[in-house]
Amino acid sequence: MAKSPEGEHPHKAFGWAARDPSGALSPFHFSRRENGDEDVTVKILYCGVCHSDLHTAKNEWGFTNYPVVPGHEIVGVATKVGNNVEKFKVGDKVGVGVLVGSCKRCEPCQQDLENYCPKVTLTYNSIGQDGTKTYGGYSDMIVVDQRYVLRFPDNLPLDAGAPLLCAGITVYSPMKYYGMTEAGKHLGVAGLGGLGHVAVKIGKAFGLKVTVISSSSKKESEAINKLGADSFLVTSDPAKMKAAMGTMDFIIDTISAVHPLLPLLSLLKMNGKLVTVGLPDKPLELPIFPLVVGRKLVGGSDIGGMKETQEMLDFCAKHNIAADIELIRMEDINTAMERLAKSDVRYRFVIDVGNSLSQ
Amino acid sequence: MAKSPEGEHPHKAFGWAARDPSGALSPFHFSRRENGDEDVTVKILYCGVCHSDLHTAKNEWGFTNYPVVPGHEIVGVATKVGNNVEKFKVGDKVGVGVLVGSCKRCEPCQQDLENYCPKVTLTYNSIGQDGTKTYGGYSDMIVVDQRYVLRFPDNLPLDAGAPLLCAGITVYSPMKYYGMTEAGKHLGVAGLGGLGHVAVKIGKAFGLKVTVISSSSKKESEAINKLGADSFLVTSDPAKMKAAMGTMDFIIDTISAVHPLLPLLSLLKMNGKLVTVGLPDKPLELPIFPLVVGRKLVGGSDIGGMKETQEMLDFCAKHNIAADIELIRMEDINTAMERLAKSDVRYRFVIDVGNSLSQ
Repeated sequence: MAKSPEGEHPHKAFGWAARDPSGALSPFHFSRRENGDEDVTVKILYCGVCHSDLHTAKNEWGFTNYPVVPGHEIVGVATKVGNNVEKFKVGDKVGVGVLVGSCKRCEPCQQDLENYCPKVTLTYNSIGQDGTKTYGGYSDMIVVDQRYVLRFPDNLPLDAGAPLLCAGITVYSPMKYYGMTEAGKHLGVAGLGGLGHVAVKIGKAFGLKVTVISSSSKKESEAINKLGADSFLVTSDPAKMKAAMGTMDFIIDTISAVHPLLPLLSLLKMNGKLVTVGLPDKPLELPIFPLVVGRKLVGGSDIGGMKETQEMLDFCAKHNIAADIELIRMEDINTAMERLAKSDVRYRFVIDVGNSLSQ
Repeated sequence: MAKSPEGEHPHKAFGWAARDPSGALSPFHFSRRENGDEDVTVKILYCGVCHSDLHTAKNEWGFTNYPVVPGHEIVGVATKVGNNVEKFKVGDKVGVGVLVGSCKRCEPCQQDLENYCPKVTLTYNSIGQDGTKTYGGYSDMIVVDQRYVLRFPDNLPLDAGAPLLCAGITVYSPMKYYGMTEAGKHLGVAGLGGLGHVAVKIGKAFGLKVTVISSSSKKESEAINKLGADSFLVTSDPAKMKAAMGTMDFIIDTISAVHPLLPLLSLLKMNGKLVTVGLPDKPLELPIFPLVVGRKLVGGSDIGGMKETQEMLDFCAKHNIAADIELIRMEDINTAMERLAKSDVRYRFVIDVGNSLSQ
């Protein structure tokens, strides 16, 4: 018979879990494995609240295995390191992102693209190498193989830096892979949420001209004055959309709802690239004529490998980039989830795990 | 009052034109301009029958301006050259493809990408720089600015080489642009018609492993034994489609009908590229999950610039690549169009204009 979450590993752990598709989170006792030779044990201080946490808590993608402890934007302190661990020592500030394991042998793993490993182990709602379920960062501690642990740069704020571990790498990796980093080029950022607002900051750090593309003008002055965007384009304004046709080199599309691609494709110049990082649950309509006559492309990208995630953290530290956050206490998570579902957050909730998680 | 097609230019010309959406072609008297300083006058010997000719003759894309003389896979002999023409002399074998003019000043023109010039003049059903209508290669002669005239290599057959001027460049250009030419990589060719069969040959010349992807097994032995494909995959065979998942680096999708992209995307490896060169008249369904989790892309491409078209002709000459054709007489064009509409041709009709067009 399978052991209970509390009994399967030697170390007691505590967090908040969703138990059913209501998505309501409540206190949850479980356990973590012994720290192995390759492992780092992390006392969790902060954890970002990603839209994926909400999708999973409510089983909106259809593969949630309850109970689920969400959270994959984890920042904390190393409290134990295994015999083979040289990169980290006790007391180091560390980060854990979307993945905590992979096969280490396949082509993607050997190319430092563990995120595309067919046997990737996600930080929560996944089955690890030892056959037990993974639980995420809405909890007091976690034990992770050193390969999947990140050095958290000294000058990054622990709380506002946490969202970089998912939102940051999700927009940084495609910018590098699809060649969207040449200073002076024009980047459109479609959707100004957790991912989009970090994309604006990273785009500016690369020296790009950045235009936010949004369905409403609500966030216009904030996008320009606070986030540093160069301009703001409202998709419901036909005159401005027409004037902006053929002006952008790249677009990062962070919209997770089903939406039309044609208006975005029209904004691109010849050879323009549209990269989708949102995950609409239904197919989008792809008109072929604009792709063909402008030699445009639509590409995807999924977080990033460990090496690139470290590179991204170091890049953000160098350029003083962190997320704009609302810091919440653990017991406020259900209210925060409700607000997140309505996009009522600027721009990321982060849970103050260290100061608010108590049994 | 606008002059008649016969009266607007000094040189009498004769061809076959469609007059209405029935698409039926019949003899047509019109005229061609005087040979200017930059021009080459071409006596037309052969002209390929492209699917675009059929779409335009029947107004299936909705922008046909009747009467229309189709034909943009033109091979002939230079009979007059202007004072500023140095690249060509009378008697040279020459080709004319899909375009006969562009602005020469915009960014695409300056990058030898005249095909993406916003003011491109197409070889037929277009308005030229002088404000008069263009008529294509189902005719006895044509006058073309030297920039848009190609040297036709000596060892290319005049008849079977003609289709390279549209079908050839349409598949060659994306293979170069999207980085699909590395020997040993695996190319899928979806659809085995005029474009697809040339893609197989060009793919093999680049040293690729080539798999034809088709909805039926009818052309299997021919694809392998005659065209040189390495394997053949029938999309209606679920077991074989499943076994082929994640095995291809690139796919050139030449299918012009609306079709599902998901099965093709599933065949691609991580970082795989699907390039569409067919022109379905309705949007395709684009599932986002496979794009994101495999970092795949869907791109478009539209023929090629003049410099690259010349490069492609020289490449095909070097590798003895020409189309597999059925040579027809001008008066057989309507029957050929009917067969083309049913994909009943292996793999391209070419009109023997020089020997069969008579008034």
